[in-house]
Amino acid sequence: MGHTTKDKDKLLARVRRIRGQVEAVERALEAETGCAEVLQLVASIRGAVNGLTAELIEDHIRFHVVDPAREPDAGKAQGAEELIGVVRTYFRH
Amino acid sequence: MGHTTKDKDKLLARVRRIRGQVEAVERALEAETGCAEVLQLVASIRGAVNGLTAELIEDHIRFHVVDPAREPDAGKAQGAEELIGVVRTYFRH
Amino acid sequence: MGHTTKDKDKLLARVRRIRGQVEAVERALEAETGCAEVLQLVASIRGAVNGLTAELIEDHIRFHVVDPAREPDAGKAQGAEELIGVVRTYFRH
Amino acid sequence: MGHTTKDKDKLLARVRRIRGQVEAVERALEAETGCAEVLQLVASIRGAVNGLTAELIEDHIRFHVVDPAREPDAGKAQGAEELIGVVRTYFRH
Repeated sequence: MGHTTKDKDKLLARVRRIRGQVEAVERALEAETGCAEVLQLVASIRGAVNGLTAELIEDHIRFHVVDPAREPDAGKAQGAEELIGVVRTYFRH
Repeated sequence: MGHTTKDKDKLLARVRRIRGQVEAVERALEAETGCAEVLQLVASIRGAVNGLTAELIEDHIRFHVVDPAREPDAGKAQGAEELIGVVRTYFRH
Repeated sequence: MGHTTKDKDKLLARVRRIRGQVEAVERALEAETGCAEVLQLVASIRGAVNGLTAELIEDHIRFHVVDPAREPDAGKAQGAEELIGVVRTYFRH
Repeated sequence: MGHTTKDKDKLLARVRRIRGQVEAVERALEAETGCAEVLQLVASIRGAVNGLTAELIEDHIRFHVVDPAREPDAGKAQGAEELIGVVRTYFRH
């Protein structure tokens, strides 16, 4: 019941983008870029880390708890769907 | 498959405590208390709202998705247990 | 060098709105409203508490540190302006 | 009025540690490590990004707004000190 290759690739692409954002902060600090600009770059890392967290939790729910698309019990399918919605609200906003 | 009365009472007690914390901020602003002190009170509301969020999500998982204590499928029970652990990590810290 | 009455009224209006939001959660729990809906209400409290935090910090900067509109040193005025921008970015998003 | 070399080195060390943490998540995903463990690694990145944010804001206050250690106006020095305390509370907890 492991995650699919497609999911893994999507997650790896997200993590590599975050690595690129961290390297951009490193270069900005070395080039003595202004504080406000560096803080803007760091804020975008924070947003990307929240997005990765939401994606990981959502995948965990689908693969290891209840996948709303395959669950025969309608109540549980709806509960899992709502839970995924809540995770998105909290980590993407 | 509704939440138990015990859970409801626990959640209501949390919400009433938050209301009391909000009223304390109101009184502090009216009394022209110093900014730093007001900000401390507001930070404690933020912590309490995060705690309430964690509790609500945990209850939702147990009652509407998978209750680790009653789930016969060991994989799903473990998945739900891990999910509850993640929610606690993210909202209580 | 206290805050103005106008600022105080604005902050009090925000806090009273938050108290109303907390009371709405209390009523929703008593009426056994669905989890997803209650969590949505709690998410809106979280957003409002972040907004109040941003406003309090911004006022603190203007009244007790450096008010960009009155500071004669252009560097400090810009530094304070940037700081207020950062606070808004972090607490409103 | 730029930041000191010592501050820059400290910030760079923090950013490089975060890069290492991101690379650890990349390796964990490639090795198909369990979700709960990956999420734990991502939570630690989030904490480190918050710590970096606090440090950057604190440095910005000291170098571009008011340095409590050098400010002759006692009220402003205290205001800046309190502001730094608030930033630490919000980003380290």
